[in-house]
Amino acid sequence: MVGKSQIKLIKSLRQKKYREEHGLFIAEGRKCVTELLDSNLKCEAVYADDFGIMKQIAFDCTPVGAAQLKQMSNLKTPAGVLGVFEIPSEIKPLASGIALALDDVRDPGNLGTIIRLCDWFGIPQLVCSVTTADCYNPKVVQATMGSLSRVRISYVDLPQFLANDKRPVWVADMDGENVYESTLPGEFILVMGNEANGISAEVGRLASGILSIPRFGALHKTESLNVATATAVLLSEYRRHHP
Amino acid sequence: MVGKSQIKLIKSLRQKKYREEHGLFIAEGRKCVTELLDSNLKCEAVYADDFGIMKQIAFDCTPVGAAQLKQMSNLKTPAGVLGVFEIPSEIKPLASGIALALDDVRDPGNLGTIIRLCDWFGIPQLVCSVTTADCYNPKVVQATMGSLSRVRISYVDLPQFLANDKRPVWVADMDGENVYESTLPGEFILVMGNEANGISAEVGRLASGILSIPRFGALHKTESLNVATATAVLLSEYRRHHP
Repeated sequence: MVGKSQIKLIKSLRQKKYREEHGLFIAEGRKCVTELLDSNLKCEAVYADDFGIMKQIAFDCTPVGAAQLKQMSNLKTPAGVLGVFEIPSEIKPLASGIALALDDVRDPGNLGTIIRLCDWFGIPQLVCSVTTADCYNPKVVQATMGSLSRVRISYVDLPQFLANDKRPVWVADMDGENVYESTLPGEFILVMGNEANGISAEVGRLASGILSIPRFGALHKTESLNVATATAVLLSEYRRHHP
Repeated sequence: MVGKSQIKLIKSLRQKKYREEHGLFIAEGRKCVTELLDSNLKCEAVYADDFGIMKQIAFDCTPVGAAQLKQMSNLKTPAGVLGVFEIPSEIKPLASGIALALDDVRDPGNLGTIIRLCDWFGIPQLVCSVTTADCYNPKVVQATMGSLSRVRISYVDLPQFLANDKRPVWVADMDGENVYESTLPGEFILVMGNEANGISAEVGRLASGILSIPRFGALHKTESLNVATATAVLLSEYRRHHP
């Protein structure tokens, strides 16, 4: 059973201010909930309207009606199970190794895809500017497909962080060094920029290099690659050099 | 001015059966409409509620009210301008060169991103199974960012097409050849599979090789890359070998 006030609280977690107030976020679907239960994250509750799914979840689920789950859910078609997890306390970035940084990436789908890419390519840390989408936004959580708990995600004053860090800073932008011909260092910070405006002037000033993915289209009209697909290409190139 | 019946017709173009009946599709936003006007596609009408945008469009725009544009628009926030274009007559696949094929890619956002990737990496043709999302779906058109007119897109019986084509067929899947160590031929057909189920058994049987992107995540738990990001990595690898 679940009361009206609990449903109201869960609905409120779609908004960042309520996620911050309660220190909680939601994840939906068997795969996503299972992977988060299997991590270090603390789970507060799991609600399910499907007995088949309930049996597959390693947590004492609260049974709810389909109508109640629909009220709590952030999906058009609820996925049968919804978990409420605690947002971990502030995560500090690591001071060494490879790091991916995001300079104002706004789209939740892009952020979720990028978190999943970090997990796939073994990039242990993601450093986000405070203006980047919130990684506990339900749309981001959904797009990560459970990778959220396996990547160390920090929110920082990005220019200040980059200025104080000893690693070289490379930014992804047009008219830089051809990534296929570059010698990528083993340890560095790769920065991806905003969907419409690219890298900010403040961050650009701190760059030791610019990396570009060459364009091959005959008419050379495509203005840019989507930030998530560009991240895929650059992380793949990094791992080809540093498996 | 625009009449009620015209608004109704434009709204109906969100559905494939009406797009097929009328042979028309819609595109929204200055960039997308401008790029399609600049192509071989025939434009039927352009509606705009913004005088500033209207001046930038090389077409005799029909002025409409914001409320009318909102009724026609497929976007939550209409982008000021909406174009109605003719769907070109059936496009046959080319018989040589590199081709990308999609085996039941269902998500319009993924298809749009993949069309944009083909444009960026100079892949002239995209061959889709009949079950793949419709490239004139407004969500696809929006995600292509204007690349739609620069890639030759065909819908075919994919197993039959692959069986009759002379080029080698490589499918993207788990547990295949490491793409970083493969010698990719200059001419071949690369097939990407469905978001949940990958390559179909029918298409798999026709493959001369399987290409995989190695996974580097420490826990090796990420189940798969999103089909659009995997396409980005594979097309990038192809162009690195065959600029």
